[in-house]
Amino acid sequence: MQKEIYMREALIEAEKAREKGEVPIGAVVVLNGEIIGRAHNLRETTKNAITHAEILAIQDACKNQDAWRLEGAELYVTLEPCPMCSGAILLSRIAKVYYGAADPKAGTAGTLMNLLQDSRFNHQCEIEPGILADECGAILTSFFRDLRAKKKQQKEP
Amino acid sequence: MQKEIYMREALIEAEKAREKGEVPIGAVVVLNGEIIGRAHNLRETTKNAITHAEILAIQDACKNQDAWRLEGAELYVTLEPCPMCSGAILLSRIAKVYYGAADPKAGTAGTLMNLLQDSRFNHQCEIEPGILADECGAILTSFFRDLRAKKKQQKEP
Repeated sequence: MQKEIYMREALIEAEKAREKGEVPIGAVVVLNGEIIGRAHNLRETTKNAITHAEILAIQDACKNQDAWRLEGAELYVTLEPCPMCSGAILLSRIAKVYYGAADPKAGTAGTLMNLLQDSRFNHQCEIEPGILADECGAILTSFFRDLRAKKKQQKEP
Repeated sequence: MQKEIYMREALIEAEKAREKGEVPIGAVVVLNGEIIGRAHNLRETTKNAITHAEILAIQDACKNQDAWRLEGAELYVTLEPCPMCSGAILLSRIAKVYYGAADPKAGTAGTLMNLLQDSRFNHQCEIEPGILADECGAILTSFFRDLRAKKKQQKEP
């Protein structure tokens, strides 16, 4: 299915993050069937909490389109967006968000709240959750398991 | 008063935005009494909807501190933060937000909702609204009045 193909591209981005020791989250922006932006989380590398996968993918797409409006575009992201990324999605006028795993700690595309479909803001977008949810969740689970094992090893004499 | 001094610096940033034809919003980040980040809205200049004053000021502060955590820092912004900027404030662990004018259209630091003090997120921050509110609101009002007059003039033969 087409949407799984794009989510696999987001997973490729997540894998790039994992290789850099970053929390493995990836995103792609698609317009008319073409990937116009792609990125992965780079918080530790950039030492900047704003560099989430979605923000960087949106910025990449804006650069490619030479415009801040991404009307009609779709965002594929491996983890449900946080408040910052949900806000960025609304501001850039993205039409639809597909996400993989839900985020019970900070997800604001339906889990803790639904910022993407709050009629008080000047834009709303469609949401489709659960695309390759198991794979998107597994890469995060294994990353944190490895991190804990590494920390435990460092503590042992 | 100290907080008015910092809000005047945010207003200086807003004025820089106005001179560039950008919606005049400015922000500064303060740590231990020192301004460590400052910026103004640059959406049209950068053709990037993410370049709100707060985001750019936080990024400037992170660069100056060489860290993504801005613990203990205070953000002064002329307009109440939107969802994206509220999320960025939480992610960068800012301790307190002072804002000027309230934003009935997108304000999420108390007006439409209060993302900054939602106990479900892993960080909350203090909020003090209304610092130089009249001046912070007036620069926006006059900007939009001038913009409407300009558009009307362009339509006339």
